Amino acid sequence: MKEFELIQNIFQSSVMASTKGRSDLLLGIGDDCAQVAVPQGQNLVFSMDTLVEGKHFPFDADPLDIGYRAVATCVSDLAAMGAKPAFFTLALTLPESDPQWLAALAQGMAEIAEPIGLALVGGDTTKGPLTITLQVHGYIDTGTAPLRSSAKVGDDIYVTGLLGDAAAAVPIVTGELQVTSERFDYFYEQFWRPEQRLIAGMALKRVVNAMMDLSDGLAQDIQHILKASDVGAILDASLLPLSHELKQWQPEAAIALALTGGDDYELCFTAPKEQAEEVALITQTLCLPCTKIGEITEEGLSIKGYDGELTGWQHF
Amino acid sequence: MKEFELIQNIFQSSVMASTKGRSDLLLGIGDDCAQVAVPQGQNLVFSMDTLVEGKHFPFDADPLDIGYRAVATCVSDLAAMGAKPAFFTLALTLPESDPQWLAALAQGMAEIAEPIGLALVGGDTTKGPLTITLQVHGYIDTGTAPLRSSAKVGDDIYVTGLLGDAAAAVPIVTGELQVTSERFDYFYEQFWRPEQRLIAGMALKRVVNAMMDLSDGLAQDIQHILKASDVGAILDASLLPLSHELKQWQPEAAIALALTGGDDYELCFTAPKEQAEEVALITQTLCLPCTKIGEITEEGLSIKGYDGELTGWQHF
Repeated sequence: MKEFELIQNIFQSSVMASTKGRSDLLLGIGDDCAQVAVPQGQNLVFSMDTLVEGKHFPFDADPLDIGYRAVATCVSDLAAMGAKPAFFTLALTLPESDPQWLAALAQGMAEIAEPIGLALVGGDTTKGPLTITLQVHGYIDTGTAPLRSSAKVGDDIYVTGLLGDAAAAVPIVTGELQVTSERFDYFYEQFWRPEQRLIAGMALKRVVNAMMDLSDGLAQDIQHILKASDVGAILDASLLPLSHELKQWQPEAAIALALTGGDDYELCFTAPKEQAEEVALITQTLCLPCTKIGEITEEGLSIKGYDGELTGWQHF
Repeated sequence: MKEFELIQNIFQSSVMASTKGRSDLLLGIGDDCAQVAVPQGQNLVFSMDTLVEGKHFPFDADPLDIGYRAVATCVSDLAAMGAKPAFFTLALTLPESDPQWLAALAQGMAEIAEPIGLALVGGDTTKGPLTITLQVHGYIDTGTAPLRSSAKVGDDIYVTGLLGDAAAAVPIVTGELQVTSERFDYFYEQFWRPEQRLIAGMALKRVVNAMMDLSDGLAQDIQHILKASDVGAILDASLLPLSHELKQWQPEAAIALALTGGDDYELCFTAPKEQAEEVALITQTLCLPCTKIGEITEEGLSIKGYDGELTGWQHF
């Protein structure tokens, strides 16, 4: 029990801080269940993600980075629903209980969770191979969820931010590849600290038809929208937003990384052409990098200027 | 993606059936988030549990049993809150994707989830050492949660069902111990198919002060109530409800197993003496085995008729 209490204490003293003064959180860690009063007129949205050591992040990674990224990647699903972050639960499976390691993990989580008002309200701790499962929960006004199934023929297709950097970063992060310290710093950050698009998601949901987040690579992910909406798309590879750093480092692989690399955690959305000005206004107001990359069509997926593979991240 | 879709299909065709006609479940598997409208006047309660192969269940166990028990043990937390089961999410980490194994796991889950109206609404599937994390969600009327912190000096302490059988079953279930087939059948069932106390929890919450479920052994678990309520307890070891089968098989170890063995998933609750008749009425009406085992005192924990160790299941 001592170890168990230690873990609780570490998390309560860092990530738990943001439960204070929250009238929706009636009961947190310490009873059989947590209890929440969802604010009136709001729906609960939630998403669950698992990160496995050696599969989703390298062995012996910095726990501070692991903690930050675990929350960031899961929060990305809330952004895609235009939801306000509310609380999360954490199932932590650990080979051993190292207080310093745990404190750093909790600190990494708090770094992103605290500023966005995401409180840790429960979870479980077990012994085993390092595996982190989070369920993040948010609130949205009833009837305002931007679904994957609402894309319409003729919609413009947009993505936020830059694509391909995180995928390019993988061999750097795992240590397989040695690069200059400047390059290391840039790409390391892109992998471990994906941009957080919550405000963007909340602002954009008024004007989009369909929206999702990109985790497994644009070419694969967009097919979820196409399938759910029963439409097609034409994308223009030359329009894909690539960083200066990526183009300089890997000019030939950059487009393939952007299309199939995964780990971007940017938003991809479709909006009627009549909303183009409104989209521009929102993205300018938020200083949000946002690029039109194609259009929704009747059927199929074609990518102008690209004839490589279209397979993204394999879950299994 | 093929494997991934396979897993989705297996679960959608079995466990997912119970989402039909549910007006609270607005959006299930297939978008970035699931979306739920919590019924008016109700709060959401939820609990997350992880089961690790080799720690919480033996290697090479029957997936049908694993599935059933994973849901049953997590649902036990809903019972302890007197909550109505609503939905669950599932994070499944698997070393390989074997359709037959997965179908059996899903069937085991459906066996318990379907009859109690618990629908699978989302989750994640990843590759790695076999680990199963569930989050179960239920609804309770606002302000009716029976907390661990509400025990009062003078309360009677009760437990439902029988204690110690599941703990005694562990060496049988792991194959360390060979027993007669009759004994095997009885104890195998006690470990893999804990009684489900949802109706009991809902009926009892009107009359209890504090309530929780027993997962780590009575002697350890009850200390959560004592600590949260700032009270003590005296238990009488001779009153502990033991099965005929356990007393016959392990007459000397039975009490220690009941106190410290864990895995019982029965309810433990305290109720004012004035409610004794009401408790009896409820338990008789439900044909619920329920035993008074002690009383809440000012401080400390003493167990009449037992002088062994009081340490239960170690989470770490």
